[in-house]
Amino acid sequence: MSAPLEGLFVLDLTRVLAGPYCTMILSDLGATVVKVERPEGGDDSRSYTPFQNGVSAYFMSINRGKRSITLNLKDPKAKDLLLPLIRKADILVENFKPGVMERFGLGYDEVSRINPKIIYASGSGYGHWGPYSQKPSYDIIIQGMSGMMSITGEDEDHPIKVGSSIADISTGMFMCIGILAALNRRSVSGKGEHVDLAMLDCMVALLENAVARYVTTGEIPKPIGNNHPSIAPFFTAETRDGKINIGVGNEVLWKRFCGVIGQKELTEDPRFLTNKDRVKHWDQLRPLLEDQIRIKSSKEWLGVFEQAGIPAGPIQNMAQVVQDPQIVARDMMVELIHPTAGNFTVPGSPLKFRNHPAKVEQPAPDLGQHTEEIYQQLCGCSLDEIQTLRAQGVI
Amino acid sequence: MSAPLEGLFVLDLTRVLAGPYCTMILSDLGATVVKVERPEGGDDSRSYTPFQNGVSAYFMSINRGKRSITLNLKDPKAKDLLLPLIRKADILVENFKPGVMERFGLGYDEVSRINPKIIYASGSGYGHWGPYSQKPSYDIIIQGMSGMMSITGEDEDHPIKVGSSIADISTGMFMCIGILAALNRRSVSGKGEHVDLAMLDCMVALLENAVARYVTTGEIPKPIGNNHPSIAPFFTAETRDGKINIGVGNEVLWKRFCGVIGQKELTEDPRFLTNKDRVKHWDQLRPLLEDQIRIKSSKEWLGVFEQAGIPAGPIQNMAQVVQDPQIVARDMMVELIHPTAGNFTVPGSPLKFRNHPAKVEQPAPDLGQHTEEIYQQLCGCSLDEIQTLRAQGVI
Repeated sequence: MSAPLEGLFVLDLTRVLAGPYCTMILSDLGATVVKVERPEGGDDSRSYTPFQNGVSAYFMSINRGKRSITLNLKDPKAKDLLLPLIRKADILVENFKPGVMERFGLGYDEVSRINPKIIYASGSGYGHWGPYSQKPSYDIIIQGMSGMMSITGEDEDHPIKVGSSIADISTGMFMCIGILAALNRRSVSGKGEHVDLAMLDCMVALLENAVARYVTTGEIPKPIGNNHPSIAPFFTAETRDGKINIGVGNEVLWKRFCGVIGQKELTEDPRFLTNKDRVKHWDQLRPLLEDQIRIKSSKEWLGVFEQAGIPAGPIQNMAQVVQDPQIVARDMMVELIHPTAGNFTVPGSPLKFRNHPAKVEQPAPDLGQHTEEIYQQLCGCSLDEIQTLRAQGVI
Repeated sequence: MSAPLEGLFVLDLTRVLAGPYCTMILSDLGATVVKVERPEGGDDSRSYTPFQNGVSAYFMSINRGKRSITLNLKDPKAKDLLLPLIRKADILVENFKPGVMERFGLGYDEVSRINPKIIYASGSGYGHWGPYSQKPSYDIIIQGMSGMMSITGEDEDHPIKVGSSIADISTGMFMCIGILAALNRRSVSGKGEHVDLAMLDCMVALLENAVARYVTTGEIPKPIGNNHPSIAPFFTAETRDGKINIGVGNEVLWKRFCGVIGQKELTEDPRFLTNKDRVKHWDQLRPLLEDQIRIKSSKEWLGVFEQAGIPAGPIQNMAQVVQDPQIVARDMMVELIHPTAGNFTVPGSPLKFRNHPAKVEQPAPDLGQHTEEIYQQLCGCSLDEIQTLRAQGVI
C-alpha cells in the first residue's frame, strides 16, 4: 500500500531543525525529499554531538529517508543547476533568514514564475514581514518572547524553557500543515502558494488558554509547576521512591481516589467538596494527600490507581521511554540501519493510517550521497559535467 | 480570495482540547466545521473558568468559527439523524476513548460503509491499539510518560511539565497533518482513510534529539534548565532588573558578545576558546558572564545585543505578548465579537498564506446555535420534527 504523499517531489533547502522536521514528516508520509546541502560540511547539524561511528545522531534522527545532493547556492551557476528540480518540484521548503532566498535568485516570486504550481514554504524566527523580521533568533529566544516560558516552571522567579526545541518543532509541524492545505487547494485550482511561518507566531498559537485567561481577567498567568489552573488534584506526587503524576478530573474520580488512598473522610470535608473548593484550598489539601502517597512506592500506587481507573502515570526517562510497551507496540521506536553509523533507533511517525501507512524505513543520507544520481537523472548533467562542477566547488 | 480548505465539510465530534484544536485549524483554513455537542451543557470546556459575561474564555478561544448543533449520541435515533451529515462530510474528527464511537454505531468501519470517501481522524491518550489503549489519561499523565518531563525543568529532582497542554495541542496538530495528507491521497485515489493519533505517540515525536542522544551514548538526558546541551553561552541571564535569554551560537558571535559585555579577555582564556570548551567549562564561565550582565537593565542589554546582532530576547508575560509589535503586526492577536461575551481576543492563525489566507473572523457558537438551520437544511427535518426531538432530549 502506498503512503499518502507518494509521488510528490520536495525540494528541501532547509537546515538544522524547523525546516528539516517539516520535510521529515513529508518524507515519512511518502514524498520524495531531495535535500540540498552546501558542499563543505553540509547541514550544520551534521556537526552536532553526539556521534555514532562519526555520524551525528541529531542529523540522523531528523533526516531519515531523505536524499542528499550538494550545491553551493551562492555560486552563480547554482540557480541554473536547480532549474530542472524547481520545474519538477511540487513543494519547496526553506528556512533561511528572510531575504536570503531572494539574494540566491530563489525567492517565491522568481520560483513561482518558473513553476506556478509550486507550493513554497518558508520558516524563520519572526517571519517575512513585521518589525522584527530581520532579527536573529534561536529556539530559546522565541520560547521567551512568546510567553511560553512565563507559564512554564515551578514559580514566577524560575521561568523554564520546554526541554525540547518546541519553537522549532511546532514551526516544522505548522509548515507541514500549510503545505498540505495548499496542496489541497492546488488540486482544485491548479495554482501554487507561498506560506510564511514564523516561530514566534507558532509558539503564540500553542499557548492554549493563557491568552484567553489574560484577556478575560486581566490577571497575568504565571508558572504553576505541575499543577492545573482549574483542576485539583492534578499534580506530581512524591511516593516512597520517586514521583508520579495523578489527574483527578471529576467528582466521581475524587471519591474513588480518596477511597483508594484511605482518606474517605476528605470527601466530606467542606474545604474539598467540589473541584472548585479543591482548587481554592489546594495548599491545604496537597500535604494531606502527600502524607498518604509517600507511604507506598510508585509501582504500588500506579497499580492501585490503574485498578481503580484513576488517571495516573510515571515520569519516565528516556531509558524507560524507548522500552515502554505501548510506545513499542505503536512502532514509535524504529530501528534503521545506517551504512556508516550502523543500527540506530529513531522515533517513529505518530501518523497511524489504516490504508496508506507512513513509512520510517530508510536512514539519513551521507552528504551528497545522491548527487550523481540526481544531477544525472533529473538535471541532465553528464558525469564529466558533474566532475567539473565538483572541482569548481559548485557542488 | 478563498481560504485553502473552503468547500470542505467537517463533522466534528470532539470535546475539550486535542480534537477541538484540530478542527479549529481546519476552520481557520476555511473548512465548514459542524460541532456536535450533547444537549445538556455541550462540550465540557463550556464550563471551564474564567468566563466573560458567562461564556467560557477557554471554549471561545478554541472553537472560533465553528457551528454548533446538539445531539445525544447515546440516543438510538442519533445515528439516523447524523446520516445525512456523514454522507456529506469530507472529514470526521472524534476524540472519544477508543471503543466509544463503535458503541454509538459510528466506528470507522460503519461510517466508511456509509461514506467510503470520508477521512476519519481519531485522537486519544494512547491510541486505538496497544496494551494501554483503554487507560484513562490527561495531558500531564502523557507529558510524564512520554519523557518530556524528564528533560524539562531546572534539575533532575524537579521535572516540570510544559505550561500549556502540549500533549493535547500537538495531537491536534498531528491529527490535522494526517487529515490533510489523507485528503491529498483521496484527490488521487478517491478513497477515504482512518488515521489514529495517540497523545503518547505525538509527544514522543516531539522529543527532538533526546532519543537520539540516549540511544547513541547510553546516557539518560536530564533537565538542564534553560541551557543547551551542546551550545554555550545559551542561557537565561539575570540583569539588574529581570531576566533575558541570550544565544551565542557560533565563534563570530562569541567574540562579538565578549566585546559588548566588556570581557574581551575571555576570548583568549584557554577554558573558553571554542564552543566545545565553553560547554565543558560552563559552570566556570556562567558566573563571569553574569557578573557583567547584572550591571545593566534588561532593556539596556537588549538594545546593546540588538545593535551587535547577537540573538537575545526578553521573557515576556502574557500582558507583554498581546501587545508585542511583531505579534500584533503578524495578526497573531485577533479581536472577535461574540454576541454574548462581547469583544474577545484570540490568538490568530500562524498559517500566513500569500494567495489564500487563513481566516479567524467568526466567534465561537452558542450551544446549539445552528441546530435548527442544519437539521432543516442538511438533514431534511421539519421544524415540527426538530421540536419533538428537542422535547425528547435527542437534540
